[in-house]
Amino acid sequence: MSGIIADRVSAARKYVLLDEYVIKVVKAGKVIDFASGSPDPRLLPKEEVKEIASRVLDEYGDEALSYPPSVGLRSLREAIKTLLSKLGVSIPNSKVVVTSGAVRAIELASEVLLSSDSYTVAEEPTFSPALYPLYALGRGIEHVLLKEYRVLDVSALEEVISKLPIKLYYTIPTAHNPTGSTFSSKVRNEVAKVVCENNVVIIEDDVYRTVLGGEAPEPISAICARRSHTYIYLGSLSKVLAPGLRIAYMLVPEELFPHVRSVAGTELTLSPLTMLIAYEAIRTGLLLDRIHRLSREYRERMRVLKDSLSDYMPDNVCWNEDAEGYYVFIKVKGVNMIKLLDDALREGVGYIPGDAFLHKHSDPETARLCIAKPNSEEVALGVKKLAKVIKERKKL
Amino acid sequence: MSGIIADRVSAARKYVLLDEYVIKVVKAGKVIDFASGSPDPRLLPKEEVKEIASRVLDEYGDEALSYPPSVGLRSLREAIKTLLSKLGVSIPNSKVVVTSGAVRAIELASEVLLSSDSYTVAEEPTFSPALYPLYALGRGIEHVLLKEYRVLDVSALEEVISKLPIKLYYTIPTAHNPTGSTFSSKVRNEVAKVVCENNVVIIEDDVYRTVLGGEAPEPISAICARRSHTYIYLGSLSKVLAPGLRIAYMLVPEELFPHVRSVAGTELTLSPLTMLIAYEAIRTGLLLDRIHRLSREYRERMRVLKDSLSDYMPDNVCWNEDAEGYYVFIKVKGVNMIKLLDDALREGVGYIPGDAFLHKHSDPETARLCIAKPNSEEVALGVKKLAKVIKERKKL
Repeated sequence: MSGIIADRVSAARKYVLLDEYVIKVVKAGKVIDFASGSPDPRLLPKEEVKEIASRVLDEYGDEALSYPPSVGLRSLREAIKTLLSKLGVSIPNSKVVVTSGAVRAIELASEVLLSSDSYTVAEEPTFSPALYPLYALGRGIEHVLLKEYRVLDVSALEEVISKLPIKLYYTIPTAHNPTGSTFSSKVRNEVAKVVCENNVVIIEDDVYRTVLGGEAPEPISAICARRSHTYIYLGSLSKVLAPGLRIAYMLVPEELFPHVRSVAGTELTLSPLTMLIAYEAIRTGLLLDRIHRLSREYRERMRVLKDSLSDYMPDNVCWNEDAEGYYVFIKVKGVNMIKLLDDALREGVGYIPGDAFLHKHSDPETARLCIAKPNSEEVALGVKKLAKVIKERKKL
Repeated sequence: MSGIIADRVSAARKYVLLDEYVIKVVKAGKVIDFASGSPDPRLLPKEEVKEIASRVLDEYGDEALSYPPSVGLRSLREAIKTLLSKLGVSIPNSKVVVTSGAVRAIELASEVLLSSDSYTVAEEPTFSPALYPLYALGRGIEHVLLKEYRVLDVSALEEVISKLPIKLYYTIPTAHNPTGSTFSSKVRNEVAKVVCENNVVIIEDDVYRTVLGGEAPEPISAICARRSHTYIYLGSLSKVLAPGLRIAYMLVPEELFPHVRSVAGTELTLSPLTMLIAYEAIRTGLLLDRIHRLSREYRERMRVLKDSLSDYMPDNVCWNEDAEGYYVFIKVKGVNMIKLLDDALREGVGYIPGDAFLHKHSDPETARLCIAKPNSEEVALGVKKLAKVIKERKKL
C-alpha cells in the first residue's frame, strides 16, 4: 500500500499533528483544556441558530437546499464586506469570496497563484494546517523565525525572499497563532514595503481580528492595495459565530476574482443553508453583538491567563506579555513539554506542545496555551495545575 | 496580473464551462431547463429539513456548531454504510469518509494517490469539474471515447493504460454523466480485470445509483475489493436529499483510510450541522423513502423524455435508448448545438452543448438533456420546442 501513496501525504500528517494533541487532551476526560482552539461550547448560539435556521428554511428554502454559487451567496458576500468595515478592514476594489473554512481560502489562493517552481515563506512558529496547500501546490515552504517567539524580524523576512523564488508570504499578523503577537503598524508597513518591492503576494490570515473585536492595526493587505499590489486577505466566522457553519471569507483584488471563481467552481463545498444562517446572523446584528461581547470575554480570560502565569509559574517559564486573542506561547527552560503532557493530563490540564507549530527547528521546551474553551476561573486553575507539574518535573 | 496566475487556472476555466451554460439558461428566464443537474426545487424536503434542523440543534447543538471530525461524524459514516447496503453497495473492509460534495472526494483521492508524474484516464465525454483535481495534482488526463457516446470499449481503455503511466481511472459507470449509460456487469468485470492487472486505481463516481433507487449492477469497486485491489468508490446525497447540505461520501480500503484522514484534516470543509441533518434523514427513514419515490419520478421523466424524442425529433437526431438516471446525450447531425442554443432559449428551452463534456475532441453536434428540473409535462413540451428549432435550423 505505502508504495502507492503520494509523498505529499507525509507532509499532511506533520501539519495535522496539532489535531492529534487536541484529541489526546479531549480523550483524557475531565481536564482543563488549553489545547483546543474551538470556541467554548457554552458560548455557542444554539437557540439563535435554531431560530434563524427555521426562518431561513421558511423564507429561502429553495436557495438553502440547492447548489451554491461557487464564490458564495451575493447577500452574504455583501454582508461580510459591511461587517469588516466595522472591524477596521476596508480594502478598496476588493471582492469577497466565501469559503468553507479559512484553509479552503488558502487552498484557493494557492491554486491560483502557486506554481510547482515557486516557494512560500511562513512564520516559525505558525498555524500548521494552513501550510498544507501551500506545500502541496508549490515547490516548498521556507520559514522566518519570530524573534523570542514574538516579533517578526522584517530584515530576516527580506533575506529569505532575496535567496529563493518566493511567491507567497503566509502571515498571521493579528493575535498570531500560536504566539498571540500582533504586529505593530510600523512592522505592517515594513512588511508591505518588502512584499511590494519583491513582488511577493501576501496571504494575510486575519482570523483573530474578530476575536479582538476589530481592535487591531490596519491589515497589511490594505496597504498593499493602496500600492496596487496583489494580496489575499482572509478571515472567518468560526471563532465568533460557530465553527460548525464552516463560513470563512477572503478579500481579493478585482483582477484576481475571476480566476478564484473558476477554481472555486470546480469544487462546490459551500452549504447555502449555513451561508444563509451566517447572512441572517449578520443582517440582524446578532454577529456584531457577539463580536463585542465575546471579545470582552476573551480579553478577560487572556488577562487572567497572563496574571496567573505571573502568579504561579517558576522563573524558568517565559512568555509574550503582549499576547492577545486566544494564545500564549510559553517557553519552559529545562523541561520537555512533549514528555510533560502525560503528567499534566494526570494533574488535570492539557495543552499543545509547541513543536506542533514548528517546522524549521524543534523546541520541545515550548507549548501553546489557548483560552478558547476554559472560562476565567478554569484558566486560573489550569495555570496553577500546570505550574505544579512544571515545578515537580524541574526538581527531578 | 495574468503573469502571476498559475497555469492550472486555465484548465479550471475549461472544466467549469458547463456551469456557464447552466447560468446562461437560468438567466434566460422562463424556459424549460434541460441544462441544470440540480434537483427540482419542487422536490426538495424543505419542511422535513426544517423540522430536523430544529431537533438537531436541540439535541446535538454543541456538536452541530463545533468543528467537524476530518472524515465526518461517526454516526453519519455508519448510517451511510447501512444505506448503501440497501442500494446494492457492499464492500467488505471499506471505510466511509464524508466529504463536502463529490468533487471534494475526488480531490482527496488525488491528494493521496496522484504524483506529478502520474496520469489519469477518464471517459470522453465525462463530468468535467471532476477532472480539475485529477489534472492539478497529476501529470495530465487521457480520455477513452465511449463508442457512439454509449459503450465503454474496454480494449481501448486497456490500450491507453498500456501506453502511459496511468495511476487512476475516473469512471461514472452508473447512469453516466452526460450520456446516461450504465455499464453492464460484463463490462464492469472486464474493467476490474484491466485495472487490477495494470495496477490502476479506479475512482468510481456512483452518484447516480441513488437516482436509480439502487437498481444498478454491483460497483466495480466491490469486484476490485474482492481481488484485494485498491479502489475509491464515491457517491452523494445531493440528488436525493438536498445539494445544499453538501454531503457526499467515499468508501476506501482500510489501509488507505489513515492517509485520507491526514489530508482531510488539513482542510475542514464539512459542516457538522448539515451532517447531523443528513444523519437524521437516514436514521428516520426519510432518505430511503425519498430515494424510492424520487427514483420512480425520475424514471417516469426519463421515459417521457425518450418517448418525446422518438415522437418529435427529426431523423438527424440520435441518442442512447438505454439512457437512465438524469441524462440523455443527443447527437444532431448537421446542426451546431452551441450556435443553436440562443434560438432554443428564445423558443423557451435550454440545454448544455456536449462540448462542455468533451476534452480530447470537439463535437458541436451534441447536447446533454437533463430531467432533474422539469417534470414530465415540461419534459414533453421542452422536447417539442427543441425539435422545432432543430427542424427550422435544418431547413436553413
